[in-house]
Amino acid sequence: MTIQEFDNKLAQTIERLSDPSTYDVVCYEHRMGEPLPSIAKLKKIVNMVREILFPGYFGSTSLRPNSTRHYMGVYVDELYELLSQEILAGLCFECQDKRADKVKKHTPKAKDIAVNFIEHLPEIRRKLVTDVNATYQNDPAAKNLGEVIFCYPAIRAITNYRMAHKLLELNVPLIPRFIAEMAHSETGIDIHPRAQIGESFTIDHGTGVVIGSTCIIGNNVKIYQGVTLGAKSFPLDENGNPIKGIPRHPIVEDDVVIYSGATILGRITIGKGSVIGGNVWVTNSIPPNSKLVQSRHKEVAFIDGLGI
Amino acid sequence: MTIQEFDNKLAQTIERLSDPSTYDVVCYEHRMGEPLPSIAKLKKIVNMVREILFPGYFGSTSLRPNSTRHYMGVYVDELYELLSQEILAGLCFECQDKRADKVKKHTPKAKDIAVNFIEHLPEIRRKLVTDVNATYQNDPAAKNLGEVIFCYPAIRAITNYRMAHKLLELNVPLIPRFIAEMAHSETGIDIHPRAQIGESFTIDHGTGVVIGSTCIIGNNVKIYQGVTLGAKSFPLDENGNPIKGIPRHPIVEDDVVIYSGATILGRITIGKGSVIGGNVWVTNSIPPNSKLVQSRHKEVAFIDGLGI
Amino acid sequence: MTIQEFDNKLAQTIERLSDPSTYDVVCYEHRMGEPLPSIAKLKKIVNMVREILFPGYFGSTSLRPNSTRHYMGVYVDELYELLSQEILAGLCFECQDKRADKVKKHTPKAKDIAVNFIEHLPEIRRKLVTDVNATYQNDPAAKNLGEVIFCYPAIRAITNYRMAHKLLELNVPLIPRFIAEMAHSETGIDIHPRAQIGESFTIDHGTGVVIGSTCIIGNNVKIYQGVTLGAKSFPLDENGNPIKGIPRHPIVEDDVVIYSGATILGRITIGKGSVIGGNVWVTNSIPPNSKLVQSRHKEVAFIDGLGI
Amino acid sequence: MTIQEFDNKLAQTIERLSDPSTYDVVCYEHRMGEPLPSIAKLKKIVNMVREILFPGYFGSTSLRPNSTRHYMGVYVDELYELLSQEILAGLCFECQDKRADKVKKHTPKAKDIAVNFIEHLPEIRRKLVTDVNATYQNDPAAKNLGEVIFCYPAIRAITNYRMAHKLLELNVPLIPRFIAEMAHSETGIDIHPRAQIGESFTIDHGTGVVIGSTCIIGNNVKIYQGVTLGAKSFPLDENGNPIKGIPRHPIVEDDVVIYSGATILGRITIGKGSVIGGNVWVTNSIPPNSKLVQSRHKEVAFIDGLGI
Amino acid sequence: MTIQEFDNKLAQTIERLSDPSTYDVVCYEHRMGEPLPSIAKLKKIVNMVREILFPGYFGSTSLRPNSTRHYMGVYVDELYELLSQEILAGLCFECQDKRADKVKKHTPKAKDIAVNFIEHLPEIRRKLVTDVNATYQNDPAAKNLGEVIFCYPAIRAITNYRMAHKLLELNVPLIPRFIAEMAHSETGIDIHPRAQIGESFTIDHGTGVVIGSTCIIGNNVKIYQGVTLGAKSFPLDENGNPIKGIPRHPIVEDDVVIYSGATILGRITIGKGSVIGGNVWVTNSIPPNSKLVQSRHKEVAFIDGLGI
Amino acid sequence: MTIQEFDNKLAQTIERLSDPSTYDVVCYEHRMGEPLPSIAKLKKIVNMVREILFPGYFGSTSLRPNSTRHYMGVYVDELYELLSQEILAGLCFECQDKRADKVKKHTPKAKDIAVNFIEHLPEIRRKLVTDVNATYQNDPAAKNLGEVIFCYPAIRAITNYRMAHKLLELNVPLIPRFIAEMAHSETGIDIHPRAQIGESFTIDHGTGVVIGSTCIIGNNVKIYQGVTLGAKSFPLDENGNPIKGIPRHPIVEDDVVIYSGATILGRITIGKGSVIGGNVWVTNSIPPNSKLVQSRHKEVAFIDGLGI
Repeated sequence: MTIQEFDNKLAQTIERLSDPSTYDVVCYEHRMGEPLPSIAKLKKIVNMVREILFPGYFGSTSLRPNSTRHYMGVYVDELYELLSQEILAGLCFECQDKRADKVKKHTPKAKDIAVNFIEHLPEIRRKLVTDVNATYQNDPAAKNLGEVIFCYPAIRAITNYRMAHKLLELNVPLIPRFIAEMAHSETGIDIHPRAQIGESFTIDHGTGVVIGSTCIIGNNVKIYQGVTLGAKSFPLDENGNPIKGIPRHPIVEDDVVIYSGATILGRITIGKGSVIGGNVWVTNSIPPNSKLVQSRHKEVAFIDGLGI
Repeated sequence: MTIQEFDNKLAQTIERLSDPSTYDVVCYEHRMGEPLPSIAKLKKIVNMVREILFPGYFGSTSLRPNSTRHYMGVYVDELYELLSQEILAGLCFECQDKRADKVKKHTPKAKDIAVNFIEHLPEIRRKLVTDVNATYQNDPAAKNLGEVIFCYPAIRAITNYRMAHKLLELNVPLIPRFIAEMAHSETGIDIHPRAQIGESFTIDHGTGVVIGSTCIIGNNVKIYQGVTLGAKSFPLDENGNPIKGIPRHPIVEDDVVIYSGATILGRITIGKGSVIGGNVWVTNSIPPNSKLVQSRHKEVAFIDGLGI
Repeated sequence: MTIQEFDNKLAQTIERLSDPSTYDVVCYEHRMGEPLPSIAKLKKIVNMVREILFPGYFGSTSLRPNSTRHYMGVYVDELYELLSQEILAGLCFECQDKRADKVKKHTPKAKDIAVNFIEHLPEIRRKLVTDVNATYQNDPAAKNLGEVIFCYPAIRAITNYRMAHKLLELNVPLIPRFIAEMAHSETGIDIHPRAQIGESFTIDHGTGVVIGSTCIIGNNVKIYQGVTLGAKSFPLDENGNPIKGIPRHPIVEDDVVIYSGATILGRITIGKGSVIGGNVWVTNSIPPNSKLVQSRHKEVAFIDGLGI
Repeated sequence: MTIQEFDNKLAQTIERLSDPSTYDVVCYEHRMGEPLPSIAKLKKIVNMVREILFPGYFGSTSLRPNSTRHYMGVYVDELYELLSQEILAGLCFECQDKRADKVKKHTPKAKDIAVNFIEHLPEIRRKLVTDVNATYQNDPAAKNLGEVIFCYPAIRAITNYRMAHKLLELNVPLIPRFIAEMAHSETGIDIHPRAQIGESFTIDHGTGVVIGSTCIIGNNVKIYQGVTLGAKSFPLDENGNPIKGIPRHPIVEDDVVIYSGATILGRITIGKGSVIGGNVWVTNSIPPNSKLVQSRHKEVAFIDGLGI
Repeated sequence: MTIQEFDNKLAQTIERLSDPSTYDVVCYEHRMGEPLPSIAKLKKIVNMVREILFPGYFGSTSLRPNSTRHYMGVYVDELYELLSQEILAGLCFECQDKRADKVKKHTPKAKDIAVNFIEHLPEIRRKLVTDVNATYQNDPAAKNLGEVIFCYPAIRAITNYRMAHKLLELNVPLIPRFIAEMAHSETGIDIHPRAQIGESFTIDHGTGVVIGSTCIIGNNVKIYQGVTLGAKSFPLDENGNPIKGIPRHPIVEDDVVIYSGATILGRITIGKGSVIGGNVWVTNSIPPNSKLVQSRHKEVAFIDGLGI
Repeated sequence: MTIQEFDNKLAQTIERLSDPSTYDVVCYEHRMGEPLPSIAKLKKIVNMVREILFPGYFGSTSLRPNSTRHYMGVYVDELYELLSQEILAGLCFECQDKRADKVKKHTPKAKDIAVNFIEHLPEIRRKLVTDVNATYQNDPAAKNLGEVIFCYPAIRAITNYRMAHKLLELNVPLIPRFIAEMAHSETGIDIHPRAQIGESFTIDHGTGVVIGSTCIIGNNVKIYQGVTLGAKSFPLDENGNPIKGIPRHPIVEDDVVIYSGATILGRITIGKGSVIGGNVWVTNSIPPNSKLVQSRHKEVAFIDGLGI
């Protein structure tokens, strides 16, 4: 390829990539000065919240009795700054108002929401303590609570979920989803921030778990890796688009255990105290205290000449 | 342990670790100056391509109507530099020629391939737009196209796949696999870059999806988390080594939906418009418009005294 | 919200977050100067070990025949420094002794363990070579050994496992779990560091694999994505807490293959040379050379009007 | 020291450091959300301007004929973003208005100034080219123009000066001083941004050069290291404070050379074409074409028994 | 050069560089685990102290009335950690005891000194406020106190000096010198940490200022760039080595002004209220209220044909 | 300013900045793929050399007797890689050959020079040891050799000089000047890499020292801050350009001491053992063992009403 050809090829490609007619879907044309959500800052926010909730575990500094309050004060201050920025970015992203100065319009709301979220941190901590305790109780391999807080991916995923859920309750767009997807990427646990989850929630191993957006999960529920709490299907409107906002995921009542790989689909109810076996496929409601397993003797066969 | 013992132990271990006879497999003895593929640079390349394909979403700068072309120009320029380096690294890695100056030998080819790849970016963008639109249509939880582009792991995985596939078509060794594994690590979605996938492709949740190297997937296909499109077995040659390059993964025709956890194995065909239910195991071809589910009433049992 | 209200809200939240009565579970009150395990340093350690085991693949420098020994020397030296620090952090974390100067108490032990671990690196390398070779033999898509070492997530997971397992044998608390969870996060493969795994071990794709803490796996075993080697249930003590340390996961003998999504639970034995089909649920021991698959014709139904 | 004593001492010190009565001078109490000037961002701005002015020298990317315009476009865009932020920070810093929302008040002005500054970049480049040419002409050790642009601290200092001077002309507070002090720290050359300096200006070596705020320097002037163009004294007002804004530094006309260590003080004029010798102390005006040196034979003595 | 020759040359050079006989002076053989002073950490310490002394100026966070105490608390805590480490490094560096575990031996002392230093921070702040005020009073170009604190290199240099001086008073080896040299490198102002300097001290421009180790400087002294307060000569002992610790630098009494480039050498006294002109060379004591200048008419000559 | 105006102004400025006719001097149009000298890499090179020359002082790792050779081996290897790259960048920068592939043309030469330079490191170390010893002997404030190596800016400047001088002897363009300017920026000491400097060289304080490119300095010379060894003037060729390469700076023979602020100009000789006093201006040769000072009683006057 001559240098001339090379230059031409690149130049033509740049033209094609800059052609506005190809920008219908792909380009996000925000105005100058409007903030974009920043993955890096959201990561910082999540780490800061984790440090606030579990002081001494994730920070870089040793805590002394006299100094904890100071650390809380500083972390809360820094969190407020970062979080109100990201909330603002979320509000601007969704805002369709073409004429307004979006930053000016949404800044006060972003600040109020940030304060509101911070006020809920003690409650989020209280719930997470129940999750940590339940996880420790349920796992014979756990040596102590510290190991659970430090190492367990489920605690990480549930922490992100509880943050994201509160932000979504406060009507923050986009940011909750980001925070949930961060945990999804790190742990393979995909909890939609709109799902409602009670206390003392535990997930073991966790990879492949999916909890859909309209799920309602009670207290003291335990699920294993690969469990899906999903939708069966969803009604379409007259244009063939899915109708949004209809409850379409399961209700899981208190004290339920769901073993690995089970698939539970649709707006059904798994009754209090039930146990769902591994790899089971459930699309109907189950009464309380049921034990549901694969009729495994039927489905497994010894075969001599296996073709696999 | 005395300091003497300590020093001896470390010294002996260093000797053992440096023993060339242990290097048969583990050591990659490239010559000085030959580039190694760099994960950090490949990450930068993927981010740059993402910024080029979806301008305004992932970059650090706000776009104005007048300035988009400049950004495209600069990104293409930087991409060319980085990409030709990494392609060169891939070519050198695979090259068995012990005597040649590999860098000199492969540099022109690496540059040509980089230009070629860049020329295909508009086409890759066009296909990804179909994927984004299909994802939005198919997910009642998606608020807008922006959220899909920003947050959905499947879009991230499919973007990497479409990049990696094109590089593999251009005969770049090693690099496509790296790019695919990046997405695998981030999203739990494992698409072999050699697979052929049509337009308007959607993956929901995605963790645990496996799409094998000889798969052929049509347009408008949707699959859920935990779906395997795998090989049943593979013929061995006379030395007991697997014979490479034989088609051994499924063909999935247009408009097929495959629900979570389904396992589809071997060079079989899932006919156009079929629906495969969750957790199903399929090893035979299925005619068009089939609906295949677990015969779930049979396999599930209510048991009082469950042993699990 | 007035500035006054704003200040009050933040101040009250800081008080609530600093209330020692809420610190029962969540706060790790280590004394000043005691090291905390550092994820960043553990990542560095894992990368350093990977560079030592597979010289030339992951480092930033080209190797020449004369210089390999120098690199090994420096890497071992740096590894010793970093690793003894992290081991010390683990020992301090678990130590309940309230009065002792933990750093002083555990430093010599931490150093001894670090040396001990380093002495086992050649043996770890030897085992990993068997894993790499087996992976290459078993995957028709693998082009060469280098690709396997460079790109395959399973090799990454098994490397972390073999490191973590050795550290756990040397009675290091916490750190092995961290190292295992790193691989879990990157690859979706969750191998408990206490599991015992033989040579020539391969995992294909890997996402969703779970290998429990009391598993015993022989040589030349291959498993696919989504396979669970788990516990069925665990006996509780009189207080309702799980009894720790009882064998409760499967024994998998030599030459076994387990296909994707299979769930094998409890202290059962999968006999030598057996093949377990995909998505199968196994809770009883299986004799050698068995072939076990889903009785798939029974469980799959063609349905016209699918309700999913 | 007991832990109790230790804690008390730190706690008391924290109280003393937090005592608002000690904050009279030392504390900058800006309101939340108001930007502070950022040294890191100003460094980025200076580097970006340098890259714009001397394309190809300081950037990380190779330039091709077709691509320069794209780079200019992107750099200008990024510069605008960063610079308007820092100008805003400067305007807020100086603004005494206690009640206003300073960010809102000053943002439009900050943006206008940033655009204004950018419009002057071609003129700044034109002047710097004259400085570079003059430096090359005047230094027998300079191999080529590239070396001058790349390595000469004087070019770096004059670049910062020309930027800072323009910003100060545009009434930006604080930021010009920062930019000047950056160059001062890097090069030891201290040019006040308010000084007026003509074209083809050269400084050799430069360390210790001081050019005061009301200096006026013509075209084609050359000065050496350690030269001071300073003030003799300054009149005080009735409160004993220095009266600001009175011309009190020298006027140096065209084509003057001032050798190392010369000290020129007060609102005097060094006439066109004059040469001032090294280490000379000048406090009176000098007519054009003067040659002024130390009467060196008088002041130097050979002494046998030196007391130094 | 053949690869063989190349390898040999490098190998031989490595041998020569590793030859212990060449290590007499150049090698610092500290034992494993002993900390080395870290420039990066010392920079962090200096920045932290600057943030503590001038809250709101240098930190990354906005201060609110309620939150300042928290920031002080956290900064003091972090400072204590970092500083006691660096002090320990300094103590170990100087300690000649070959047998002791230096870390163990010096740790308590290092911690005590760190607390001691922190207790002096309010006093250091008080003195710096006098310096800032004096600088503002003395410079007609200074717009406000904030500009002085933010931008003036002299304040930076004096801050480092006041820190370093206190550490040296507390008998910390090496570290004070490092801190002083940092300021020297940034500002060109070289103040030996052992010098004693009163309140309301100002340095204008500053590059080239040297203040020797046994200087005593009163209150309200102002000096300009290039001023040397140095030693004339120093007595040697019988071995020809300089005798350490003898006063050999000037005493400068209150209210003295010294203009640029003046050189004042030896243990002489510059009397209260004196003014020393620029470029003057002084080696004898000067009575109070003296005005000393170059007899400039004598030493300057107009020359037509200048040879320079 | 309307958005339209704003866009137009930026667009016009971009056009003006991209106008090739303004690129005569300012643009460095290297071809794609040609390396540019990298300040960041040169800093790394200098730090690496410092670590090699003074093992244990600047590195991040503790040295043990057994491990020094390994560190030397690795540092030399890494230095070779980095240095040959930068030398190549320098060679390409100066090369005027428009048609050649400069990288290909100069790579072998760059590698040879890098090896050559590395071979001289032991000799550079030997000379620096003499400098360190002399510095310690000459400074009563120096506590030990370690402090000199660690903290003294002169050692830093002389180290860079000795590196740069050797590279210049090996005909490397541009890079030596960069390395010298780094030290100049950090220390205020400006030594031209072409100057020839003997052993046991010491500089005290150093800020403002200038040593010109054709200086020849003997052994055991000591100079203080602000000393200039410069050129008086330089002959011009028929075009008025300075004639390059003519000796025009002083020769300073062995055992000379030059006090602060002295200015020594032209190709004169300062005879062996001479002492030059502070602030003296010398433009004629001085015989051996001279003592030269300002006739200070003459030039200093006590004045009552000082006009400064």
